[in-house]
Amino acid sequence: SLARRCHHRSSAMLDVPFLPFCAFLGTLGLLCVAMVGTWCQHWRGGFSLDGSSRTFNWHPVLMVTGLVVLYGAAALVYRIPHTWSGPKLPWKVLHGGLALGAFVLTVLGLAAVFRFHNSQGTPNMYSLHSWMGLATVLLFSCQWVAGLGAFLLPWAPAWLRALYKPIHVFFGSTILMLAVASCASGINEKLFFSLKNGTTQYKLLPAEAVFANTLGLLILIFGVLVVAALARPSWKRPDSDSPDSRQVREALGG
Amino acid sequence: SLARRCHHRSSAMLDVPFLPFCAFLGTLGLLCVAMVGTWCQHWRGGFSLDGSSRTFNWHPVLMVTGLVVLYGAAALVYRIPHTWSGPKLPWKVLHGGLALGAFVLTVLGLAAVFRFHNSQGTPNMYSLHSWMGLATVLLFSCQWVAGLGAFLLPWAPAWLRALYKPIHVFFGSTILMLAVASCASGINEKLFFSLKNGTTQYKLLPAEAVFANTLGLLILIFGVLVVAALARPSWKRPDSDSPDSRQVREALGG
Repeated sequence: SLARRCHHRSSAMLDVPFLPFCAFLGTLGLLCVAMVGTWCQHWRGGFSLDGSSRTFNWHPVLMVTGLVVLYGAAALVYRIPHTWSGPKLPWKVLHGGLALGAFVLTVLGLAAVFRFHNSQGTPNMYSLHSWMGLATVLLFSCQWVAGLGAFLLPWAPAWLRALYKPIHVFFGSTILMLAVASCASGINEKLFFSLKNGTTQYKLLPAEAVFANTLGLLILIFGVLVVAALARPSWKRPDSDSPDSRQVREALGG
Repeated sequence: SLARRCHHRSSAMLDVPFLPFCAFLGTLGLLCVAMVGTWCQHWRGGFSLDGSSRTFNWHPVLMVTGLVVLYGAAALVYRIPHTWSGPKLPWKVLHGGLALGAFVLTVLGLAAVFRFHNSQGTPNMYSLHSWMGLATVLLFSCQWVAGLGAFLLPWAPAWLRALYKPIHVFFGSTILMLAVASCASGINEKLFFSLKNGTTQYKLLPAEAVFANTLGLLILIFGVLVVAALARPSWKRPDSDSPDSRQVREALGG
């Protein structure tokens, strides 16, 4: 039919190959890491481990690097077409290893803000940012442990793996969305804390505010693009267990 | 095979029917609206149109009601199984009408905060929250106008509709994610502004802070569940133009 021909033409026009898209995402992720580092180094006094605000500065850098960029890389491993053939174990180890790296950076990022609060006598865990952020990290730790138990260790029965897989995939995207929302609220909050006096007030939009607001928008774009890439049916591993892809394979005689 | 039988059993166990899920989502959405209204009425002094902080109070109420809850309802119209048979036009009108209602509330919500800032002499559009929020509203207005032009007015050619449809679907979820992230940063920011002195400091976690933090988490859960419902393959309209669902129909002899 005409509509179907039209559809084929239009979806071909929208077809983006995965690897160039991934290169773009990688560049965007590295830009976010470079910008959060530059913000803390250039405007917020740099880094230290002495419990001052220079200790706090590790918090945004480690969270953006771990819970957003490295987490996004871990999530996208199974979308690389090279992983679709041959043994799956090395890719599982890569996926779990990148996620573990992301988790370690995240825990260090939490340690930085707790150390800063404790040495300043500020209470922990009162703001919505902290509630969201800790909920995100707790979900991430459950996700990692359950993923290890179900998919990497050899003891989980097939029915349990099949039951848990869509849950793992769902929380994979959800945790990233929550991480990105946590970053946005955290950057917003930090700018209100830091830009208070004289000519550097946040509401007068100094260079630092423009820079960090832009960073916040780039982190949001990175998160949206990773979640979209994860959801795109044509980029999913064809031997996935989802009913749709199995039926597609059957339809194609696979 | 065993794996396939296991998969069938496990996906049946996870199968949630759409309408009960929708009833739950509706309840959660109404709870968010009730809570944001209660927050502003009980702790923030209620509502007025005089340019004071009681004018600002319309901002969170209208944004949560319009850009999150009503927007979510509009986005889910085509997931209702009743819409899958019979003429599509009434459902298109419902989808576009709910989205228009959401957009009107959103614009009124923007007007409330601009009126408040202007009458207080506060600059507009400096915080990351405002940048994210305005980007979200601009994307939403483009989405509504393009949807009207492509799908509701009769002049768009079939190839243009087919080209634009996946873009419309992508931005539908993206705008909701951005709206929810904007709400979280806005609630966080408002609590830092409002809870500053004496015994009501945010960091001492008074009842208002617990209430509004909880509201923020519920809005996040609402957004995540709507985006997940939109992405769920088995809840998509079967005569959708996506290549996957067409192939599934062909596989099933449809």
